[in-house]
Amino acid sequence: MQICTTVAEVRALVDAWHKEGKTVGLVPTMGFLHEGHESLIQKAVAENDCVVVSDFVNPTQFGPQEDLEAYPRDFAQDKARCEKNGAAAIFHPTPEEMYHDPAAYVNIEGLSSTLCGKSRPIHFRGVCTVVSKLFNIVRPERAYFGEKDAQQLAIIRKMVTDLNFPVTIVGCPIVREADGLAKSSRNTYLSAAERRAALCLSQAVKKGQQTIAPKMTAADVLQPMREILDNEPLARVDYLEMVDAQTMQPADRVDRAVLVAMAVYIGKTRLIDNFSFDPAGAR
Amino acid sequence: MQICTTVAEVRALVDAWHKEGKTVGLVPTMGFLHEGHESLIQKAVAENDCVVVSDFVNPTQFGPQEDLEAYPRDFAQDKARCEKNGAAAIFHPTPEEMYHDPAAYVNIEGLSSTLCGKSRPIHFRGVCTVVSKLFNIVRPERAYFGEKDAQQLAIIRKMVTDLNFPVTIVGCPIVREADGLAKSSRNTYLSAAERRAALCLSQAVKKGQQTIAPKMTAADVLQPMREILDNEPLARVDYLEMVDAQTMQPADRVDRAVLVAMAVYIGKTRLIDNFSFDPAGAR
Repeated sequence: MQICTTVAEVRALVDAWHKEGKTVGLVPTMGFLHEGHESLIQKAVAENDCVVVSDFVNPTQFGPQEDLEAYPRDFAQDKARCEKNGAAAIFHPTPEEMYHDPAAYVNIEGLSSTLCGKSRPIHFRGVCTVVSKLFNIVRPERAYFGEKDAQQLAIIRKMVTDLNFPVTIVGCPIVREADGLAKSSRNTYLSAAERRAALCLSQAVKKGQQTIAPKMTAADVLQPMREILDNEPLARVDYLEMVDAQTMQPADRVDRAVLVAMAVYIGKTRLIDNFSFDPAGAR
Repeated sequence: MQICTTVAEVRALVDAWHKEGKTVGLVPTMGFLHEGHESLIQKAVAENDCVVVSDFVNPTQFGPQEDLEAYPRDFAQDKARCEKNGAAAIFHPTPEEMYHDPAAYVNIEGLSSTLCGKSRPIHFRGVCTVVSKLFNIVRPERAYFGEKDAQQLAIIRKMVTDLNFPVTIVGCPIVREADGLAKSSRNTYLSAAERRAALCLSQAVKKGQQTIAPKMTAADVLQPMREILDNEPLARVDYLEMVDAQTMQPADRVDRAVLVAMAVYIGKTRLIDNFSFDPAGAR
């Protein structure tokens, strides 16, 4: 497995693969890889000749009050997980390699103003910008994103359509711990008591999945979920909402494909979880 | 010469060229081609195996009060000029082919807030977005832009650097009429009297080029230019400024590479002209 730290290195590698007629899959990550990331790498390896995992804690998607400095990093473990799952290369640049006095940004209107965009106003601009850069550097045929970041996935899909990126976006299901907690690099912030309290997110998701049915109102879907979150003393809800699965705008009723999503602070740690439901067909 | 109206068509064409190992040059235009555009096509043909001219009046770079509807169009003549100069294809999409309820935009801070960006606040967002789309559709090795739109050229260069587009940007000198007026599709708006009045722009440029010297203040460079513009009764100055050639921010003194640029209304027609000067070296 190749380890690339510069744009020029990873470009040379991918150019050589493309010249040989090989297809390239990209798995963009912020490192501290867990089984959720591994499922993305595995799918990418199954569908492409060569897979690049980018491992970069992107500063432009963190707000000034957010956890950029604290965000967990373990490159030795990341390398082992990438190699084990068959990645051909890791791209692990420094912030200085990626940004030189940046002025150009990719932004998306509408989809980025709801849910996580409300409490993290510059977050999706940073995500769209770094993903655009990675697409231009790696030029993958396919790129893999987790459904845990459902709003991010919807935004990336819309960005790719609007800007004509020649990349197929592949969404992959949420990977959970045995007790239901969605895998997240931020789970490492949790104390033992918080780890137990954090189960309220996946329990609320489960309750929502049992409750939801075509034509139901948002209030009817969300109310029993809300109760579970409100009953957890260590939890503070940032948002719990039902939105249109494409536009991310509030949906009053389950009359089209919807996303039911939440962000919940457990102590100081902000966790997210969600599920999708399409009344027209199979889930 | 191929005429493509859909994204899929031009992609198929360029993919085939790239598979054969051919290089591709892109000349992005809004059509109504004149000798300035022809000089871009000629340079592109000299430097690439295949040249695509995009011919698209991009609605997202026009403000609500601007001349989108009136903007001149003559596709038959454009085709003839492309063919004559050796372009391999024209890409001539409809607005509907390019935009479907768009939400994603590419924007640039700082560089787009001065000069033309002041009186045309969404202009450069539209330019960056459509150029990004064209880069993703055509995937050219090189793209050609005129130095008449000097701020646009600086913005595109910064966008390409910041977003890592794998495209080399080539700037080409202003092409002028025999009497000095910079070639522009908008010159067609001018009445005979306005056409004579419009010479004040190139006369001011000439005066500025004769005046400018290292370490001179902006006021000393601009004052004699301003007099020429003010002496023309049909002219109304939108701006006349000296800026840093890279950042487009006001420059008080000729102590680095500068751009001296103007936008002037001749009647209802807004025209631009400019020159660059680098005290470190030859012009």
